Amino acid sequence: MSDRLTVLEDPQLRAFLPLLYVVWADLDLELAEAADLRGRIEAQPWLRPAARAALEAWLDPEAPPDAGELAALRTLLDRVASTAAPEARRTFATLAESIATDDDGRAAARELATVLGLGDEIASVPAPMPAPGLLPGEIEALGDTLDGPDHFVRERVRKHLDSGKYRAYGLPTAIMRDHVRDWVRELAATGLGDLAFPGITNEGLDQRAFMVSFEELATGDLSLLVKWGVQIGLYGGAIYALGTERHHARLAAIARCEELGCFAMSEVGHGSNVADLETTATYDHATRELVIHTPAESARKEWIGAAAHDARWAVVFAQLVVGDARHGVHAVLVPIRNADGTAAPSVRIGDCGHKLGLNGVDNGRLWFEHVRVPLANLLDRFASIDDQGAYTSPIASPSKRFFVMLGTLVGGRITVGSAGGAAARVGLAIAIRYALARRQFGTAGAERRLLDYPSHRRRLLPALATNVVLRLAFATLRDRHAASFVGARTTEIPDSRALEADAAALKVLGSRHGVDTLQACREACGGQGYLAVNRLADLRVDVDVFTTFEGDNTVLAQLVAKSVLAGYSKQFADGGTLAVLRALGRRVATTVIEKNPAQIRRTDPEHLRDRTFQLDALRHRELRVTETAAARIRRRLGAKREPDAALLEVQEHLIALAEAYAERLAFEWFALAAAAAPEAARPALHMLGDLHALALLERRAAWFLEDNYFDDRKAHAIRKQVEALLGEVAAIAPGVIAAFRIPDAVLAAPIAFFDPAHPRYE
Amino acid sequence: MSDRLTVLEDPQLRAFLPLLYVVWADLDLELAEAADLRGRIEAQPWLRPAARAALEAWLDPEAPPDAGELAALRTLLDRVASTAAPEARRTFATLAESIATDDDGRAAARELATVLGLGDEIASVPAPMPAPGLLPGEIEALGDTLDGPDHFVRERVRKHLDSGKYRAYGLPTAIMRDHVRDWVRELAATGLGDLAFPGITNEGLDQRAFMVSFEELATGDLSLLVKWGVQIGLYGGAIYALGTERHHARLAAIARCEELGCFAMSEVGHGSNVADLETTATYDHATRELVIHTPAESARKEWIGAAAHDARWAVVFAQLVVGDARHGVHAVLVPIRNADGTAAPSVRIGDCGHKLGLNGVDNGRLWFEHVRVPLANLLDRFASIDDQGAYTSPIASPSKRFFVMLGTLVGGRITVGSAGGAAARVGLAIAIRYALARRQFGTAGAERRLLDYPSHRRRLLPALATNVVLRLAFATLRDRHAASFVGARTTEIPDSRALEADAAALKVLGSRHGVDTLQACREACGGQGYLAVNRLADLRVDVDVFTTFEGDNTVLAQLVAKSVLAGYSKQFADGGTLAVLRALGRRVATTVIEKNPAQIRRTDPEHLRDRTFQLDALRHRELRVTETAAARIRRRLGAKREPDAALLEVQEHLIALAEAYAERLAFEWFALAAAAAPEAARPALHMLGDLHALALLERRAAWFLEDNYFDDRKAHAIRKQVEALLGEVAAIAPGVIAAFRIPDAVLAAPIAFFDPAHPRYE
Repeated sequence: MSDRLTVLEDPQLRAFLPLLYVVWADLDLELAEAADLRGRIEAQPWLRPAARAALEAWLDPEAPPDAGELAALRTLLDRVASTAAPEARRTFATLAESIATDDDGRAAARELATVLGLGDEIASVPAPMPAPGLLPGEIEALGDTLDGPDHFVRERVRKHLDSGKYRAYGLPTAIMRDHVRDWVRELAATGLGDLAFPGITNEGLDQRAFMVSFEELATGDLSLLVKWGVQIGLYGGAIYALGTERHHARLAAIARCEELGCFAMSEVGHGSNVADLETTATYDHATRELVIHTPAESARKEWIGAAAHDARWAVVFAQLVVGDARHGVHAVLVPIRNADGTAAPSVRIGDCGHKLGLNGVDNGRLWFEHVRVPLANLLDRFASIDDQGAYTSPIASPSKRFFVMLGTLVGGRITVGSAGGAAARVGLAIAIRYALARRQFGTAGAERRLLDYPSHRRRLLPALATNVVLRLAFATLRDRHAASFVGARTTEIPDSRALEADAAALKVLGSRHGVDTLQACREACGGQGYLAVNRLADLRVDVDVFTTFEGDNTVLAQLVAKSVLAGYSKQFADGGTLAVLRALGRRVATTVIEKNPAQIRRTDPEHLRDRTFQLDALRHRELRVTETAAARIRRRLGAKREPDAALLEVQEHLIALAEAYAERLAFEWFALAAAAAPEAARPALHMLGDLHALALLERRAAWFLEDNYFDDRKAHAIRKQVEALLGEVAAIAPGVIAAFRIPDAVLAAPIAFFDPAHPRYE
Repeated sequence: MSDRLTVLEDPQLRAFLPLLYVVWADLDLELAEAADLRGRIEAQPWLRPAARAALEAWLDPEAPPDAGELAALRTLLDRVASTAAPEARRTFATLAESIATDDDGRAAARELATVLGLGDEIASVPAPMPAPGLLPGEIEALGDTLDGPDHFVRERVRKHLDSGKYRAYGLPTAIMRDHVRDWVRELAATGLGDLAFPGITNEGLDQRAFMVSFEELATGDLSLLVKWGVQIGLYGGAIYALGTERHHARLAAIARCEELGCFAMSEVGHGSNVADLETTATYDHATRELVIHTPAESARKEWIGAAAHDARWAVVFAQLVVGDARHGVHAVLVPIRNADGTAAPSVRIGDCGHKLGLNGVDNGRLWFEHVRVPLANLLDRFASIDDQGAYTSPIASPSKRFFVMLGTLVGGRITVGSAGGAAARVGLAIAIRYALARRQFGTAGAERRLLDYPSHRRRLLPALATNVVLRLAFATLRDRHAASFVGARTTEIPDSRALEADAAALKVLGSRHGVDTLQACREACGGQGYLAVNRLADLRVDVDVFTTFEGDNTVLAQLVAKSVLAGYSKQFADGGTLAVLRALGRRVATTVIEKNPAQIRRTDPEHLRDRTFQLDALRHRELRVTETAAARIRRRLGAKREPDAALLEVQEHLIALAEAYAERLAFEWFALAAAAAPEAARPALHMLGDLHALALLERRAAWFLEDNYFDDRKAHAIRKQVEALLGEVAAIAPGVIAAFRIPDAVLAAPIAFFDPAHPRYE
C-alpha cells in the first residue's frame, strides 16, 4: 500500500490527485473508462516514465485501492488542496486545475476532468454576503476590541491556520494521529510555544499572549489544539510552574516539540478528586531515587493525552512518601518511553482507543511498576528532599501546599473555557453565514432566508451575543491572571485563590456555551450540519469533552459555590467543607433584599435595556441564592446533620449558586470592557450585551417570578424585548461575524460560502 | 494486506486474534519478545504449518501491520468475540481463552497471554447490582407493560441482537458500510422484514408488529437501524403504500433484501418543502415512458440513504408533467445502478461523505439526466395515466392527493420518534448502571455512589421517567395508526389526517428526548462516556440527526401548531395558512380559562401527585397558548398584515403551542395506558409519571407563573416534590432498567457492568 502512496508525492502528479480520488471514491471505474484514461495519460509527453507508471498503477480496474489507501489519498489531497483558493476547492475539476504545477498539468487535468464528466459539476462563486449592518469602521473597532491587546499573536495564529492545511476528517484514528503529530511540530516551528514560559523561553512577564494564541488556535482543528495544550500547557506548564532551574533547561526543547511529554494526573479511580490520587512516589534514600508505583487498578493513569503513542516523558502526579510520612500529591518527571518508542522498563502503556471526538489525540493509560527515577526528577519548586533525606517545603501546611501547586496550573482551566467560546465562534460564523445564504419556504418565488425566521434567530443570535460577552469576560480573566502571575524563577509563593473560583466559574460557562452553541449550529444547518465537510460535526464532538476535562463542570460548580459561601477568603479547591462551615457561622443572614416596587413594575425598553437594571437583577439573584443556600445548610447543621451530608442535600442549590455567580461575573466583566471600548465598537456591543442579558433573564424567569423580583408583566415585557433585539441583532450579525476575523480557510465549510442548492449566484 | 487478513479466518487461529491485536495495538512488540513468542508458537504441535506460518507473519517486528490491517483485525476480532460471554470479553486474555475452539488453543492462548503480561490485567466479575427496589413480579409486570402486545417481535429482535455481533466503532467509513450491509442482510434473513407489508408478505392487518420490531432494533447499532429503515420502511414502504399489484410483486424480494433500493425524496434545495420539489417526471405518450430529470443543482437528490453505494433502485419523488399540465409530486421506480454496481445510464451518483454519525449508512446524491422508464414504473395507487395518455386519479384535489400520498408514509415518522426513545433507553441503562457501580468523593473510605448525588439524579432520572412516558405514548400512537390503517390492496382512500399531527408532535418529543438524554448520559459518565467502547458516543452522534430527518423538528412543530389552530379538521401538512385562517375566523375567543384559587394555593403532595392536577395544568397551558396564538394572528390580520407574514411573526408562539400540545398528548396517553396496566406495574408507573409530570411543570414554571396559574409557593412546592421523587425513583431505578430487558450484549459498554477503577468486587 505504501508504494502507491509514496509515488504520489511526485509534484508532476499533483494535478491528478483529485481525479484519482474521484475515480475510486465516487465513480467506480469501468474497464473501458480506465483504458480511455490510460490512453490519454500515455499521450502526455511531459510526464516522466515513473510518474506515468504510477498513474497507471492507480488506474488499474483490477487493483482498486483499499479503504486505507483511499483514505490516505484523500488526506494527501486535502493537504495539497490547502494551497488552492476557496473557490477552486469547490469541485474536483477546478481543484485539479488550480493545483497543477504547470500548464501541461493543467491542460491534462482539464482534459481528464472532462472525460470523467466532472467539468461542469459545480462552478460556483461565493454568495455575496448581505450588507453587514455595521459600518466598516464599526466592524474594525469591534474586531479590535474583541482581539484585545495581544492581537499580534492572534494574527500569527490566523496566518498559520489560513494555509488551510490543518484540516482532516473521517480518517482512521492512526492516520489522524499522524497528521496531528505533524501539525503540532509545524506549530512549534512557528515559535508560538516559546510564549508559554516567561523569563525562560521569552522575555515576557506573564502567559497572557500564550493564552490568547491558544484561544485563537481553537478556531482550527481541536485535536491540534488539545495535543498542543498537552505538550505546551500541561507538560511544559507543569515543569515551568512546579520545577526549578534544572528542569527549566528542558523548556526550550519542549516549546519546539523536540521533547514530547504528557501530563499524568488523572487516574481512573480519581478523575476529579486529585487530592486522593493513589499512585505513589516513594523516596529511597539509599539510592536517592524516587520509586513510582501504581498500587491498584484504580490508580492507573487514564485519558492521558499523548501517552498512548507520542510522549517520551510524563509529569506524574503521585503521593510522595518519605520514610513513614506521606506528604501529599507531588509531581515527578518520569521517562515512559525509550528512544525507539517502546515502553520504558516497568512502565505499561495502554491506549484509550476510539473516542467520541478528538481522535487526533492519542489518549492513553499508564501503569508504573516500581519505576525508579533520580530524586532530581522531583519538580521541587515547592517541596524538596534534602541531603539527609528530610522533606522540606517553604509551605508548611500540606493542604495549602497542594492548592498552591495546583493553583499554578489554573491557566489550563482559563484556556479551555475560552477555547470553548472560540470553537463556538466558528460554528456561529458558519451557521449564520448559511442562514443568510439559504432560502426556504415562504411565498412562491420569494423564499425567505433562514435568518428571517424568528425560530432560527432564537437558535443562533442569543448564542452569538453570549459568545461576545464571554469573550470579553475571558479577556478580563486573563488580565487578572497576568496581574497575579508569579514567574517561575522567584521565591515568592504564588496565590491564585482569588482567581480560582472565577476561572472555574467561567470555565463552566465557556465549555457549556461551546457545546450547546455548536449543537444549535448543527441543528440550524439541518442535514448540511450533519455532513463532516461542513465542519460543525467535528467541532461539536471535539468540544464535547470540554465540559469534562480540566475539571468536570459539576464538580467545579460545587467548588465555586463553596468558595462563594466561604466568602472567597478560604482555600478554593479543597472539599471546602470546614472553611464553608466556619464562614457560615460568622455570616448572619441579615442581608435584606430590597425590592423597589417602582423598579419591579417598569417594563419600558429604556429600563429593560439599562445595564444597571440587568446587572442589579443578576446580582440580586446571586446574593439571594447564596443567602438561601447558607440558611439551608445552617438549618441542617442545627438539626445535627453531618456537615458532609448537609452539603450533599443542598447540592442542586449549590450548583444554582455557582451558575448565578458565574452569570453575574461574566456580564459584569463584559459591561466594564464594553464601556471602555472605542466609541465605534460600542453600539454593537451594547446591543449584543442587551440581548445576552435579557435572554438570560428570560431563561431564569421562573426564578425571578418565584422570587417576586419580576411580576408577570415584567416577564412578558422582557420576552417582547428579546424578540425585538433578535431582529436588531439579525441586521448586524454579518458585521459581527466579520469582526471575528476568521480566515476563509478556517471557516472551510462550503455552506459558509454558498447554499449548496444554488451554487451559482447572480 | 489482504493476505495476512485472509489467513486469520482459519479457526485454529481464533484464539490468537486478541493477542495479535494487543501485540500491535498496545504493546509495541520488541524483538526479543517476538522471538520468544515465535518460539512458543513453534512448540505447539497441533498447529497446522499454514496456521503457524500465518502467526509468524503477524509476529514479525520488521513488518508491523499498518493502520488498515490493524483496524481490520480489530473488526474480525470484534466479530469473533461476539460469541463469547460478556464476562469473557472484559480482557483480551480471557477473551482469547474463551474463543479458542479446543483445549490446545486454550492452553496456548493462556501461555501467550502470560508471556505478554496480560494474564492478570483485569479479571473482573460484574458488580452485583444493588437491590432493584422493585419485587421480581413488579419488574415482570412493568416489563410486560412496556413491551406491550407485540412482545414476541421484541423478543425476536433481542435474540438476534444478543449475539453481540452487531457492533463496530472507530472503523473507516468503507469498512463500516460493509459491516452494516452484511448486518442488514442477516436481519432480513430472520424474516422480520416480512412484517412490513400486511396482506402481501404477511397475513397481518397492519404494520404495528413491524413498527414494534423497529423500535426494539433501535437499542442496537443505529446505522443498522437506519439502513434497515431505508430498505424496508422507506423503499419497500413507498412501493407498498403508493404502488399497485404489479409493484407489490417485488415486496417479497425487498423484505429479504434481495432487491436493494432507496427513497429519493429530499432535494438539496428542498429538504423540508416536499411539495416544491423540482425533479420532473415528464410523460412521453409516444413511447409510454416517463422521463426523469434533474433540472437544476437545487433539484439533486440529497442525503439519500443507500444511494451512495448499495441501492439498485430508487423510488424517486418528482413533479409529474403530462402534456402541459403539472400534477404535483408523484413517485416513480427508477433503476439507478446496473447489475455490476455501476451507475445506470444518465444517472449520476455522488457520495455525501463522512457524517457526524451513522457512517454505516451510505448516504448519497442523485442526478437524473432525462432518464427514461416505462410508465408501469409510476407508483399508481392514487394516480395513473390511461391508454389515451390522460391523467386520472380517484382524488380530484391535487393538494388532497399530495397529502393522502404522503400520509401513507406517516409510519416512518412514528418509528423514528420511538426509536429515539429506544436509543435513549440504552443510554440510560448504561449511565444508571455505572452510576450505581461507581463511587466518588465522600468521606474517606466511604465514597458515595454517583447516583447518591442529587445533581446526578437530576441529570438522569427525569429522563428515565420521560422515557417510560413516551414509550407508552408511542404504543398508543401505533395502536391508532393500526386502527386507521388501510391495506394496500383496497380501493379505500386512507385518511391519516387525525394521526398526522399526533405523529409529528410525538416525533418531535421522541427525537429531542433521544438527543438530550444521550447527551446527559455521556456527560454523567464523564471521561468514560467519551470513550467509544462505552457505546454512548456512537448512540449520541447517530441519534443526532433524528431531530432533522423524517421532518425537521422546527418545521414539524409549525405544522402541528397550524393543525391545532385549524381545529384538527383541516389538511395537516400543507402550508395550512388558509385553513388556519378560516378556522380562526370561526373561532371566537370565548374560552374562559377558569382558575380555581383554592386549587392554585394547594401545595400538598397528594395534590401535586394527583394525575388530575397534572393533566389539568398541561391542558390549561395547551388551551391558553392556543387561544393567545389565535388572538395574535387575528390581531395582525385585522391590521391588514399578509397572512404569511402574520404567521411568521408569531412563529415562536406557534412552536410553543406545538410543544404544549405534544406534552399534554404524550402524558394523557401515558396516563391512560398506565391506568390500564396490571396492578403490579402500577406503583412504578405512577411514580415515574409523577416525576415526569412534575419535572415538566417545573421546567415550564416560568410560563405558569407568568400566567398566574402557579403562585410562588406552588412553584416552590413542585420543586421540592421533584426532589423527593428523585430520591424515590433512584431507589427503583435498577428495577426499572431491568424491566427494559436489554440483553447484555446490547448494553455492551464495560461501564454498564463494572467500574473500570474497581474491576474486582467483594
